[in-house]
Amino acid sequence: MLAYFGPQGTFTEQAALGLGASPDELVPYDTVPAALAATRRGDAEAACVPVENSVEGAVPATMDALTEGEPLVAVAETVLDVRFSVLVRPGGGEVKTVASHPHALAQVRHWLAEHLPAADVVATTSTAAAARAVLAGEFDAAVSAPVAVRHYPLEVLATDVADVRDAKTRFLLLRRPGPPPAPTGQDRTSVVVTATDRVGALSELLTELALRRINLTRIESRPTKGRLGEYRFYIDFDGHVAEPRVGDALAALRRHCPDTRFLGSYPKAEPGGAPVGDEEFVAAAEWVAAVREGRGA
Amino acid sequence: MLAYFGPQGTFTEQAALGLGASPDELVPYDTVPAALAATRRGDAEAACVPVENSVEGAVPATMDALTEGEPLVAVAETVLDVRFSVLVRPGGGEVKTVASHPHALAQVRHWLAEHLPAADVVATTSTAAAARAVLAGEFDAAVSAPVAVRHYPLEVLATDVADVRDAKTRFLLLRRPGPPPAPTGQDRTSVVVTATDRVGALSELLTELALRRINLTRIESRPTKGRLGEYRFYIDFDGHVAEPRVGDALAALRRHCPDTRFLGSYPKAEPGGAPVGDEEFVAAAEWVAAVREGRGA
Repeated sequence: MLAYFGPQGTFTEQAALGLGASPDELVPYDTVPAALAATRRGDAEAACVPVENSVEGAVPATMDALTEGEPLVAVAETVLDVRFSVLVRPGGGEVKTVASHPHALAQVRHWLAEHLPAADVVATTSTAAAARAVLAGEFDAAVSAPVAVRHYPLEVLATDVADVRDAKTRFLLLRRPGPPPAPTGQDRTSVVVTATDRVGALSELLTELALRRINLTRIESRPTKGRLGEYRFYIDFDGHVAEPRVGDALAALRRHCPDTRFLGSYPKAEPGGAPVGDEEFVAAAEWVAAVREGRGA
Repeated sequence: MLAYFGPQGTFTEQAALGLGASPDELVPYDTVPAALAATRRGDAEAACVPVENSVEGAVPATMDALTEGEPLVAVAETVLDVRFSVLVRPGGGEVKTVASHPHALAQVRHWLAEHLPAADVVATTSTAAAARAVLAGEFDAAVSAPVAVRHYPLEVLATDVADVRDAKTRFLLLRRPGPPPAPTGQDRTSVVVTATDRVGALSELLTELALRRINLTRIESRPTKGRLGEYRFYIDFDGHVAEPRVGDALAALRRHCPDTRFLGSYPKAEPGGAPVGDEEFVAAAEWVAAVREGRGA
């Protein structure tokens, strides 16, 4: 069983299918923390949740839920273009009302003004709830994730609808800790580091990465809830924990901040950047071993 | 005239009033970019918009809108606790339906389950739209910003409603560039830095701050739209551009990244941390001047 942030027919379900889940093993949960809790308890083998740049507002919820409670680690990611389908009842006639989540409506405002200028716009609690309401005859059209037509027998009036062409949402597949997926040479590692609020704390951490030529791909700070004077940094960087340079950097972060939590090493959804070799790390470690044993200097 | 991210009766209006605006100069705009555009054109003297941790989903929109187009600078900030009021029609009877923006509904889920367990929950496009719909008799209760009762003659069923006690939203008051507000000793400076995507780029920038003992209060990375291989870093730190150490650090950031944009120096809404003196910066500059003139060594 694979838990996901529901309801059925939203982008998160689409992401889970894109990550190789079969439709009959997917179980929707009302919230991101609920999907993660099911995975922590062992009710689900894994959870698929949005982490970045989402249309559905779940990002801080995901980061907080990953940091609190028992550890979970990411084993895969996927990135979806945020492009909506507009769904209507078969033979439904004129579109007088269009429904969706307010975030989705905000992202198709120009499209609606051009293509359905006379339609009233109505909010729903999710893009999938809009599709259900159209099926029930409450509204005439729904702005939904393309996957919604899997669940609701609606007709597709338009696809690929988005005012902003480059909006994307990133999703992670999370499991209880276990051996990470094998390195592919195009991997990402995610960590959350809790640091005391003092001058230079973050600078020291990033210097540890830069000194090892590790490329940062994302950073975000959040104050810790209820613990004044502490900050959390969510950091993504290129590389895999199995690689000597990344293992060495993680050890350095952990020395600085004992609360450092590993959030996973997994293949990048959009590979890019030349892999950095670990030859000088291996050679340097061998040299130190040789010096210690009196075999070199 | 002061523009704000509307509609009337939301937390952003409440923030604008808290920043000293008088109710009759406030004009709501549909989107954050529209409020900023009105200020850039000179139709409005200033704009009040959410920047961080918002319930209304506007944060990335604000950061992107501040970076693109003509510069605007923050002259004040305010932080609001996210606590809702539940509003009903006077003498309205049993509450069978409760309406609000999906983000607000998500933040009062437990309260609703405890206090209005039988009520159906309905989404609206904003917390203020919910209040209007209750006034129109469409729904029985609205979960709204406390300021909503200024505009809609509704009765307050409950105040201070929030499942999570420490949710806050930060707002900025933005103007066209001009002399910044005078330093208070408890100021914050905001910048956005566009850096090429190479190993160590951010580490160098943060080292420039750490070397000057400047305390970082927030950092967030975002890929630049449409320009691959570049990242934007939104950075807030303690201090005021008028202070020698901060001016020196800003000059260093600008040397590294010519696209560095100043987003303002303004008093912190929640003062904290001992001010750092600039004596050694002044003394060191005087020493260099003396050496150059042959008055010292």
